[in-house]
Amino acid sequence: MQAEALVLERQHELSLREIDLPAELGAHDVRVHVHTVGICGSDVHYYTHGRIGPFVVNEPMVLGHEASGTITEVGSAVTDLAVGDRVCMEPGIPDMTSRAAKLGVYNVDPAVRFWATPPIHGCLTPDVVHPAAFTYKLPDNVSFAEGAMVEPLAIGMQATVKARMTPGDVCVVTGAGPIGLMVALSALAGGASEVIVSDLVDEKLQIAAGYDGITTVNVARESLTDKVAARCGAEWGADVVFEASGSPKVYADALACVRPAGTLVLVGMPVEPVTFDIVAAQAKEISIETVFRYANVYDRTIALLASGKIDLKPLISETFDFADSVAAFERAARGEPTDVKLQILLDK
Amino acid sequence: MQAEALVLERQHELSLREIDLPAELGAHDVRVHVHTVGICGSDVHYYTHGRIGPFVVNEPMVLGHEASGTITEVGSAVTDLAVGDRVCMEPGIPDMTSRAAKLGVYNVDPAVRFWATPPIHGCLTPDVVHPAAFTYKLPDNVSFAEGAMVEPLAIGMQATVKARMTPGDVCVVTGAGPIGLMVALSALAGGASEVIVSDLVDEKLQIAAGYDGITTVNVARESLTDKVAARCGAEWGADVVFEASGSPKVYADALACVRPAGTLVLVGMPVEPVTFDIVAAQAKEISIETVFRYANVYDRTIALLASGKIDLKPLISETFDFADSVAAFERAARGEPTDVKLQILLDK
Amino acid sequence: MQAEALVLERQHELSLREIDLPAELGAHDVRVHVHTVGICGSDVHYYTHGRIGPFVVNEPMVLGHEASGTITEVGSAVTDLAVGDRVCMEPGIPDMTSRAAKLGVYNVDPAVRFWATPPIHGCLTPDVVHPAAFTYKLPDNVSFAEGAMVEPLAIGMQATVKARMTPGDVCVVTGAGPIGLMVALSALAGGASEVIVSDLVDEKLQIAAGYDGITTVNVARESLTDKVAARCGAEWGADVVFEASGSPKVYADALACVRPAGTLVLVGMPVEPVTFDIVAAQAKEISIETVFRYANVYDRTIALLASGKIDLKPLISETFDFADSVAAFERAARGEPTDVKLQILLDK
Amino acid sequence: MQAEALVLERQHELSLREIDLPAELGAHDVRVHVHTVGICGSDVHYYTHGRIGPFVVNEPMVLGHEASGTITEVGSAVTDLAVGDRVCMEPGIPDMTSRAAKLGVYNVDPAVRFWATPPIHGCLTPDVVHPAAFTYKLPDNVSFAEGAMVEPLAIGMQATVKARMTPGDVCVVTGAGPIGLMVALSALAGGASEVIVSDLVDEKLQIAAGYDGITTVNVARESLTDKVAARCGAEWGADVVFEASGSPKVYADALACVRPAGTLVLVGMPVEPVTFDIVAAQAKEISIETVFRYANVYDRTIALLASGKIDLKPLISETFDFADSVAAFERAARGEPTDVKLQILLDK
Repeated sequence: MQAEALVLERQHELSLREIDLPAELGAHDVRVHVHTVGICGSDVHYYTHGRIGPFVVNEPMVLGHEASGTITEVGSAVTDLAVGDRVCMEPGIPDMTSRAAKLGVYNVDPAVRFWATPPIHGCLTPDVVHPAAFTYKLPDNVSFAEGAMVEPLAIGMQATVKARMTPGDVCVVTGAGPIGLMVALSALAGGASEVIVSDLVDEKLQIAAGYDGITTVNVARESLTDKVAARCGAEWGADVVFEASGSPKVYADALACVRPAGTLVLVGMPVEPVTFDIVAAQAKEISIETVFRYANVYDRTIALLASGKIDLKPLISETFDFADSVAAFERAARGEPTDVKLQILLDK
Repeated sequence: MQAEALVLERQHELSLREIDLPAELGAHDVRVHVHTVGICGSDVHYYTHGRIGPFVVNEPMVLGHEASGTITEVGSAVTDLAVGDRVCMEPGIPDMTSRAAKLGVYNVDPAVRFWATPPIHGCLTPDVVHPAAFTYKLPDNVSFAEGAMVEPLAIGMQATVKARMTPGDVCVVTGAGPIGLMVALSALAGGASEVIVSDLVDEKLQIAAGYDGITTVNVARESLTDKVAARCGAEWGADVVFEASGSPKVYADALACVRPAGTLVLVGMPVEPVTFDIVAAQAKEISIETVFRYANVYDRTIALLASGKIDLKPLISETFDFADSVAAFERAARGEPTDVKLQILLDK
Repeated sequence: MQAEALVLERQHELSLREIDLPAELGAHDVRVHVHTVGICGSDVHYYTHGRIGPFVVNEPMVLGHEASGTITEVGSAVTDLAVGDRVCMEPGIPDMTSRAAKLGVYNVDPAVRFWATPPIHGCLTPDVVHPAAFTYKLPDNVSFAEGAMVEPLAIGMQATVKARMTPGDVCVVTGAGPIGLMVALSALAGGASEVIVSDLVDEKLQIAAGYDGITTVNVARESLTDKVAARCGAEWGADVVFEASGSPKVYADALACVRPAGTLVLVGMPVEPVTFDIVAAQAKEISIETVFRYANVYDRTIALLASGKIDLKPLISETFDFADSVAAFERAARGEPTDVKLQILLDK
Repeated sequence: MQAEALVLERQHELSLREIDLPAELGAHDVRVHVHTVGICGSDVHYYTHGRIGPFVVNEPMVLGHEASGTITEVGSAVTDLAVGDRVCMEPGIPDMTSRAAKLGVYNVDPAVRFWATPPIHGCLTPDVVHPAAFTYKLPDNVSFAEGAMVEPLAIGMQATVKARMTPGDVCVVTGAGPIGLMVALSALAGGASEVIVSDLVDEKLQIAAGYDGITTVNVARESLTDKVAARCGAEWGADVVFEASGSPKVYADALACVRPAGTLVLVGMPVEPVTFDIVAAQAKEISIETVFRYANVYDRTIALLASGKIDLKPLISETFDFADSVAAFERAARGEPTDVKLQILLDK
């Protein structure tokens, strides 16, 4: 079926045009009229670089994977959702009979199909078909804009879940970009008593500092390890350190901030392999967790938004009409330090 | 050494009098000038019943185990605390070389000596000697009154830790007494998106309902299981149910509210063995955790108080002078439904 | 399609006769020519009582859920299995898109369809259709007879997994019936240094005692708690106690044998609710786990059989021809103490 | 008090001579007449290099930390041990009131005093004083030689405990040196169905291959990842990979062998920081655990030796008289590939 969509034709070339998209509704699927789609760093990276690691844009691909909308049709076997429900969608579709999915870690099923990861089309198009099992109802007090931010927040939530936090933990987040902020807010909602966020850019840190429970360190001017030692004791450290910058230079500091028997969670994705001091990690017998997307966190992420424990509204920097999608991506590609999340409105 | 203290002479008989108390300061001890002591249900129970289970008051015993104060002297080997530090004290002193302590569960060391558990004297006396390792500094923004509430809050924290919660969990707490409230506040601080608190007494539920994130059910008028089904789905349930009433009639409902593969945490202490439907628990393959006092939670409890994530001020119902201690216990023994915590001020 | 099968017509009435069974092969299914089927206590219980709890035999039902066989046909989407593969089958078929299945606990999906649990037909028939995702290849050194015992062994494995054992744990298993033995062998394979098995029947205990690492206690003559105290110390206990008798009188002893901060795993299914001393459990702050069938253990159970770490051969008491199925059930219903597992051979 | 001891005077210089050693017996201590002491790679490394990382031999130090012996005197507060008890000793003495020790991870207490780690003297001397809490009774069927191997085996056990294995796990151990062997045997005893051990040296692999359940790969001739793919499937991998070589070139392979959501345990200690592909780890969302000595595993290690589930006898390559200690160290420093463990006999 032909539908209008924001299409990445190839590296550096976007167009808003008609494209042929699958529209068949299976028995377990729902059809969703898309309302809001957020722009993610990975969407921008495909635009500017044409690839992310092994995933290469070899043919035109619809962008977008952070979406909310309204159900317009349900498959014959769908019982939990109904036409008119306001929803958001988990963008990865695993084979639920795979070995990984049976274990509850469907995010690492090698066969997962993920929106806007080549060659799978994304959701920057007015209507999408999606499995009901990965479509989640939004409570009345969660807006479409917030619903479209469940996806990036879910990464923060996954990091927090993997950290197996204990209530009252003191946490560090290295990196105050969008993902660092999502991690910091998730950690606070997940039981942290305090989150120390570090970055090099004051504008980003100011946004973080606007939240209760977050203190900030500009590592261009201050030592993160000193700050953590002052808070946690010189021979101790933070219970959990979330590395969310992906910058190779940050890993030694991140490791140094973890307390004995604490946890380091690797969220940021460094482009190159990183030099890592294994003996230093062993001397404190720390655990290191890695994060890949998310599994089983959408419902609890939505619950925390509905509860008011996480407030994403200050992070939605600007909203664009669907007709202005290309301009929105151009702005995102410029990377203004005060832009946390840009969103595109498909339905008004 | 002779010191004034609130002494439980025997069941039903309290006196404020001089009594001989140990005052020797070991190398690893601190001396604390007591400021505030809270009255706990167990203190009252010894007063009204003369025993709790196998622990019998056979000779005069100083009451009190919820204390804050100021350090006046430190032992020769103490390095982390100093004279003048405002502190609160963890009232159980384990043998730190015991098998349990080596495992990190010093609370279940059979040799633990616990304030105001016969035959160990409590802390309702102006000065106490305590191991530095179980004495915790209070941040400037945590008052002595709050410091003296770290002890009961630590039970809620222990319940939350044992629950191994995942951020965004929906929780139920059965029982809105002081411990139920401590559990509910700990669960919220520890990551719950919502806590449903049940009780039979409206006054208690109203206090709970004053907190964001808590909804209440008066089970005299409404069905708890219906409420949970409405929130969580008829074939699902709460992620964690904390039983905090100790009432034998509540266990079936508590069990019914747990979701498949969820957790039931047994905090309340029923006087008699309880009839429990094991097959019903198995059909959902739930985990059941029990709670005994606490271990390794004082520091994180204080951190959450300092962060403002837990506000105990509304729960301090009234403060009495040390000279009026007996009257304070008489009021506590009457059990007004609106009394959450009564405290005694030793230092003004 | 008509096929011969062992049909439970109603309580007390079995017949080996033709019955109409579904035979359609879906894209993700395999067809298996059944070789061996074990008789489980639940099959016998439906025969003798016509029901198990809420599951009532209201119309004729094929029995059997412990099966091995050979694949004769594979669905169009099946890639991991091939015609000729020797396999065993996990008898519960969940909805893999359910909330429970997404979490990895597909065994507690309320919609699971389980062989020989009314109204679902079992596998005592020459050919069955089953989802490939729940069909597991047998290594060459695992016989069909052992393959048909993967199902009961999986319950022991599930109990061991839920116990979160630490290598070297000292374990207790109360009850030396077939499930108790499966638990004991799983615990040994799963890291126990020693398993103490208790029962009232010497013949059962002798079978257990034939395994290295198992010691036995006949509680008609000896005290289990004394035995555990002698092994583990008077103030300590077993790291993990598996209750596998379902006898209400056993629970107090099972609880008494757990060490402080240890784990009690409830495997046995008592017909009536049990009186349980919650305060005694709290005083040691034990964890209690329940077991319902199994999830994600078939592959690892097969691996342990193939490794030789678990030897089930001594437990296969007698094998019957399919034609003698009714006689086999009559013998099973008599419950000889030396009969651990009776099996029926459908293919020779 | 003067006593004979094997003294590392400085790098490259050992002497068996009288040295002044503390001999005072505290109330919680025992005095042990040493029977057997094993030579560890770290002892040899201090001899050949004069330092390990930040620990430098600046003054004469007695070597040895793998010891068994017989109690000859007990302190006044010791109740669990008696004169004549055959024992082995855990060589690290933490401050049991430290933050780490309270948490149960006394091995990462920064103040721990560890035998033969500068400036703390080791146990290659006829009599030592040690805390009773870190002295463990040997069952009758565990020899002194095995008792002196509890220490290195405890490292393997710690690695296995940190791995949080599930029964039936398929494991890989990279490196067939003494520690690799200890890890492999611990993993098998701890529930592995199979352990694949890799190395470059055939003699070492042959020793490993002598154990049931261990298969070997000489990575000079074969691909470890191919072997794991053949066993576990091309898109899957081993449940747990233990890196026990410390060789920088091995880490990429070790990582490649872990299944999605599996665990990598870092046991080997690479001299230099290692280049590590974090994105590759994230793509499978693996957990990485590090190991530092051990805590709370001595008793369970001894229980597994007593049970016969771990047989260390084939690994004791040769035993030297105390008088020949220097020769023993010279041989150890040569590093014969067939030498797993050399031991020194102080008492005959």
